[in-house]
Amino acid sequence: MDRIPILRMGEFLLVTIQVDMHDQLALALQDDLSERISRTSARGVLLDISALDIVDSFIGRMISTISGLSKIMDAETVVVGMQPAVAITLVELGLTMPGVLTALDVERGMNLLRERVQTQ
Amino acid sequence: MDRIPILRMGEFLLVTIQVDMHDQLALALQDDLSERISRTSARGVLLDISALDIVDSFIGRMISTISGLSKIMDAETVVVGMQPAVAITLVELGLTMPGVLTALDVERGMNLLRERVQTQ
Repeated sequence: MDRIPILRMGEFLLVTIQVDMHDQLALALQDDLSERISRTSARGVLLDISALDIVDSFIGRMISTISGLSKIMDAETVVVGMQPAVAITLVELGLTMPGVLTALDVERGMNLLRERVQTQ
Repeated sequence: MDRIPILRMGEFLLVTIQVDMHDQLALALQDDLSERISRTSARGVLLDISALDIVDSFIGRMISTISGLSKIMDAETVVVGMQPAVAITLVELGLTMPGVLTALDVERGMNLLRERVQTQ
């Protein structure tokens, strides 16, 4: 498995991260995602991390990069499904993800994206 | 990673299979999914297998079981994102998935589910 699938949901894209990320996979995801945003004119990206028990600085940086990349291409990124333990660890470690929106689950994330897109 | 995440999208549930399935994971998915269908009163399940390069008889049987399980709980199952090579192999091997609906991608799968739910 060398690619993380990107699913199109209307004008948004959904990425569910389930596997342990490594450099190559993160780079491939960034490439695929930018290509898909460009091809589908997506207005938003939902990044589901509910399967991740651990979010370290590598994943944190990847999320920030994806968010920055999407923003340049006129798409908002919302991180959804973060586990409570992950949120606690991020705060305790002082890891911040500047400019990244979060929502409790995919539905709320999608509503948030819809609001952001409409007000633009 | 010992659980496959189940995402709620309105009245449907979305499951993206990215990792190699084994017995325990398949059983856990069946348990989780039936519990989620019951809790959320979901009317349909989208099973995204776009990340799978290989669908063998084990995965085929798991998909059939999930479909049967959902049907008992009044939810339709649609398998989406099957790779062309996977479709060819399934036909060549004579593997059938009776009662399982398929669609090209998540969007079409969701439309199919909406139609099925409305006509009931």
